[in-house]
Amino acid sequence: MLTPTASLIIKNASQLVTLHDPQKIGPKCGNLMTNLDIINNGAVAVNGSRIVAIGETNKLLKQVVLTRRAKVIDAERRVVTPGLIDPHTHPVFAGQRAAEFELRITGRSYMEIAEAGGGIISTVDAVRKATKNTLKLNGKRILDRMLSFGTTTIEAKSGYGLTTRDEIKQLLAIKELNDEHDIDLIPTFLGAHEIPLEYKNNPDDYVSLICNDMIPKVVARNLAVFCDVFCEQGVFSPKQTRIILQTAQAYGLKLKIHADELSNTGGAELAAEFDAVSADHLVFAGDEGIHLMQKAGVVPVLLPGTTFFLGMNQAAPARLMIEKGLPVALATDCNPGSSMTESMQIIMTLGCLEYKMTPAEVLSASTLNAAFAIDKGSEIGSLAPGKFADLVIWDAEDYREIPYHYGGNMVSSVYKKGVKVR
Amino acid sequence: MLTPTASLIIKNASQLVTLHDPQKIGPKCGNLMTNLDIINNGAVAVNGSRIVAIGETNKLLKQVVLTRRAKVIDAERRVVTPGLIDPHTHPVFAGQRAAEFELRITGRSYMEIAEAGGGIISTVDAVRKATKNTLKLNGKRILDRMLSFGTTTIEAKSGYGLTTRDEIKQLLAIKELNDEHDIDLIPTFLGAHEIPLEYKNNPDDYVSLICNDMIPKVVARNLAVFCDVFCEQGVFSPKQTRIILQTAQAYGLKLKIHADELSNTGGAELAAEFDAVSADHLVFAGDEGIHLMQKAGVVPVLLPGTTFFLGMNQAAPARLMIEKGLPVALATDCNPGSSMTESMQIIMTLGCLEYKMTPAEVLSASTLNAAFAIDKGSEIGSLAPGKFADLVIWDAEDYREIPYHYGGNMVSSVYKKGVKVR
Repeated sequence: MLTPTASLIIKNASQLVTLHDPQKIGPKCGNLMTNLDIINNGAVAVNGSRIVAIGETNKLLKQVVLTRRAKVIDAERRVVTPGLIDPHTHPVFAGQRAAEFELRITGRSYMEIAEAGGGIISTVDAVRKATKNTLKLNGKRILDRMLSFGTTTIEAKSGYGLTTRDEIKQLLAIKELNDEHDIDLIPTFLGAHEIPLEYKNNPDDYVSLICNDMIPKVVARNLAVFCDVFCEQGVFSPKQTRIILQTAQAYGLKLKIHADELSNTGGAELAAEFDAVSADHLVFAGDEGIHLMQKAGVVPVLLPGTTFFLGMNQAAPARLMIEKGLPVALATDCNPGSSMTESMQIIMTLGCLEYKMTPAEVLSASTLNAAFAIDKGSEIGSLAPGKFADLVIWDAEDYREIPYHYGGNMVSSVYKKGVKVR
Repeated sequence: MLTPTASLIIKNASQLVTLHDPQKIGPKCGNLMTNLDIINNGAVAVNGSRIVAIGETNKLLKQVVLTRRAKVIDAERRVVTPGLIDPHTHPVFAGQRAAEFELRITGRSYMEIAEAGGGIISTVDAVRKATKNTLKLNGKRILDRMLSFGTTTIEAKSGYGLTTRDEIKQLLAIKELNDEHDIDLIPTFLGAHEIPLEYKNNPDDYVSLICNDMIPKVVARNLAVFCDVFCEQGVFSPKQTRIILQTAQAYGLKLKIHADELSNTGGAELAAEFDAVSADHLVFAGDEGIHLMQKAGVVPVLLPGTTFFLGMNQAAPARLMIEKGLPVALATDCNPGSSMTESMQIIMTLGCLEYKMTPAEVLSASTLNAAFAIDKGSEIGSLAPGKFADLVIWDAEDYREIPYHYGGNMVSSVYKKGVKVR
């Protein structure tokens, strides 16, 4: 074995949570590992942007050669984990919907909220009026917060433009934020987020616009990796969803679905049929859908912040999915209407308290499984030689303190591709 | 009217949330004000540690004379509120109980958790073994986090020592933290937090120890303002609680009660009978208890973080209390077992989502009503001439964004007694 050269070493971690066990990682998606493959008194060696070695501190220090200007960081009494990954977000928008939040608390119905100017359409109005630069400025504030809470990679959706021009404006903002910000953004085209008002009476025409105009242009400009559809009663029917997914697939986009969020519409089954990379929400997913997702290797992305924020009594069947061997991932669903948060830490707490996932499960779900949910499992999400050096050092000696210590920020520092960014 | 002199002005706030309407504030406790008395484009003038004027920016700037070295801060597009007040915390302890959190999620019973080394008694063990300086170091980390989340005053309880020596050790740590830290700590003696193991078979003897040894010594050393009792089945009975409260009252301590947290034991009624300053938890408080509290002017301190963290289905009857005219306050209950958080912001969100309080109500509950809950309503909790200049500038244009934006930290900066501390 060649002696690795290191430009950065983080050593003496009370727990180096690697999630690295090659035996347990399948070709397509990570297992839901309750064994986090923790190295006590662990160290990680980095050269440039990538990890070159992991191991027990004393052993690792003997194995690597330091570059002349190498940095050695002491993480004594601190946990080190992979950077958090947030695989479902809507971070580029304008305005806020705090008034709608207030109305919902006082028991107002969705219709009353819409009449009072709330709902997705209110954000669509604001986004259409905003310039790309305004969207970027707003997005940057959100990304800054995400980074401060330990998130190093996110998936980022369009879906508040709902015209070809405004969807592309949102995707351009996402692209430029990806270029300029420390956080990596994986772009998803979500023209099928809602039927815009001007198509309320002829939604199939909007589906045609998506398929014949939006998708071709988005793909031609290389603005999206994924295509996503909000498959739900009153939004896009399974039939419409199928048309959009077929088109997106033909154009080479990878697929995601907003599935079974508010009712069981067969979204999980559809995700399996189309070999989607992930199916998201899944609050009302049934046994058959879960079984088919497992067979097809679709990653379930659960959003406990959304059910919490919307005051829903029902939780996604996380425990059933885990029992069936699905690699559950978690995400913030960061958006101004149904989940206004940037913190994967509160999502981990909610995963524990509301979805009955263990601290080990929520950490897997926010790192390695989240990486597979955006098809980046080979590059990020665990600490292993060859992977990007995306790391968080925590103000905690035991990883279980991260979800246990709720509503705050337990991050001590954040490294993105080997560089300290927080 | 004399022209006020100002050493600090914070101007142009999109909303200056004053909570200052002399018409609405009773002699003992603040009303639960849904009208926050907001001044748009507001300003606050401070001289030294105290507020000297509030008003619309242009008017206020004409009314005050600046000292030579005065600072003028522009809070444009930002909300300014009183510093948050956390009127129920247990911030001085040793160890953590993340393993117990994990056990609870997996459905283990209280008995199993106690057998696995959890429960209050496990923290008592750790605190008895810790030095005062260790307790202070641990407490300082918690206070630093509280301050970063906008809290400027807290109530702080003992109750993890359960011997005279160890209770005094905890109270001394609290006293020294109060001297050294920017946050003001109001000390509460809570020797009656749990029956220590050595008294399990003769709890009345422990009550005698509290009354005949602890309280006299605590009072002689001037280490507490309040005395609190955990009145609950299996902890201190109403009869034992009464004995302790009578003794504390005779020694000049003000009173608080952990009342009706896990069952209705008549704690609310007892609080009213003893004219306690606050009754806390109140998850199972009944109509009669609420009525008596209202008549006696007892402030209800609700702890939605605790019911959330313990996965309890029942919420305190916040809406009923508000309808009955009680000035509801909120607190973190910051402690390692049942509510490991330092953030009043997540508590405000939980007040909205779980207790159905409006954003205006949770802000009143975390400022002015919280001040009355620790008998400091005349000094802090609202922005009014004469009060201490404890202020938070928020990264929000509308106060409703504070609870709406959940799980994060919306603080831009914090002033304590006129000094920028964050």
